[in-house]
Amino acid sequence: MARLGILLSGRGSNFIAIADHIASGKLKAEIAIVISNRGDAPGIEVARQRGLHAVVIPSKGLTREAHDAQIIAALQSAKVDLICLAGYMRLLSPAFVRAFPQRIINIHPSLLPAFPGLEAQKQALEYGAKITGCTVHFVDEDLDHGPIILQRAVQVLDEDDVSSLSARILHEEHLAYSEAIAMVINGDCEIRGRCVKKSPRQR
Amino acid sequence: MARLGILLSGRGSNFIAIADHIASGKLKAEIAIVISNRGDAPGIEVARQRGLHAVVIPSKGLTREAHDAQIIAALQSAKVDLICLAGYMRLLSPAFVRAFPQRIINIHPSLLPAFPGLEAQKQALEYGAKITGCTVHFVDEDLDHGPIILQRAVQVLDEDDVSSLSARILHEEHLAYSEAIAMVINGDCEIRGRCVKKSPRQR
Repeated sequence: MARLGILLSGRGSNFIAIADHIASGKLKAEIAIVISNRGDAPGIEVARQRGLHAVVIPSKGLTREAHDAQIIAALQSAKVDLICLAGYMRLLSPAFVRAFPQRIINIHPSLLPAFPGLEAQKQALEYGAKITGCTVHFVDEDLDHGPIILQRAVQVLDEDDVSSLSARILHEEHLAYSEAIAMVINGDCEIRGRCVKKSPRQR
Repeated sequence: MARLGILLSGRGSNFIAIADHIASGKLKAEIAIVISNRGDAPGIEVARQRGLHAVVIPSKGLTREAHDAQIIAALQSAKVDLICLAGYMRLLSPAFVRAFPQRIINIHPSLLPAFPGLEAQKQALEYGAKITGCTVHFVDEDLDHGPIILQRAVQVLDEDDVSSLSARILHEEHLAYSEAIAMVINGDCEIRGRCVKKSPRQR
């Protein structure tokens, strides 16, 4: 059974969706550790309530490298196979990315490369996009940039505000993230250059 | 009946789709003039075969401004209500854009703002995008940038090459362009900032 490490900074709605998919048997994996950089993240409280191994590693007073070293050690000690960023609001240091090659994935609320960075839903509305969505991708050393595992499209409606659009995208995120995790841990896909393709045995 | 001016440089497949939608009664408009900057554009021959007013205005030896002035004069003389770029491979001068405010539209084979410029389908494949599509937008003075009228999404398949992906996107372009033209000439939408919204009477 693949062991997942979850990193979050807030409510962790994508973490909860992953945990629900595991609990219902839709996703065959186990959550080995949930780490937050913030002690007050609602997601870490949910992890504790569900009896998961929940760890707070505050970044205050530490360099990025020193903080990341503590997180890397915790993930290694939990023997994780795949690290899932779920609203983790810190950039990973190059050393972190190199410690888990092709083993860190993230979800972003837009169809990358459109609208990278913060407030992607607001960016899409302000641009006047008619279609946006979400992207699950491997994490590399550049922000919102690594090879894309899957994307799901969402229509922008005339009456949308940031809240209504974000809610519809989030619904797709919750489906997309578990689907992408299954693809990666089952070996259904492989990275070629910056493209993610089905593995030969899946074709 | 709204009068369309079409500008093309090549086969003009989007022009042909528009003409077909008009011929079948699906789009209530008439093509007042078809202009090509290239005498050998297959699209201009199709226009002639269909008995449309087809004009070649070569750019050779002219500055962009002088060439555009001839095209502006031809469009004004044909009393066009809306100008549709259909594979017109030249940048419009600011004077051209200002001569027809909010009256020039273009179609681009990606979900803008992703993959602007040339070879958008190849860009999407090389980026490893899983969803791309097409965008119909008003033309402003920046390349592939004006307010978006509508977009249609297209899945990228593992086995796609530029040719197969371009063909699937083109199928959506042919539907999207006539739909967008109808929205504009029927007054179903209005530009607010850089967003295109349904007109109040349409809501």
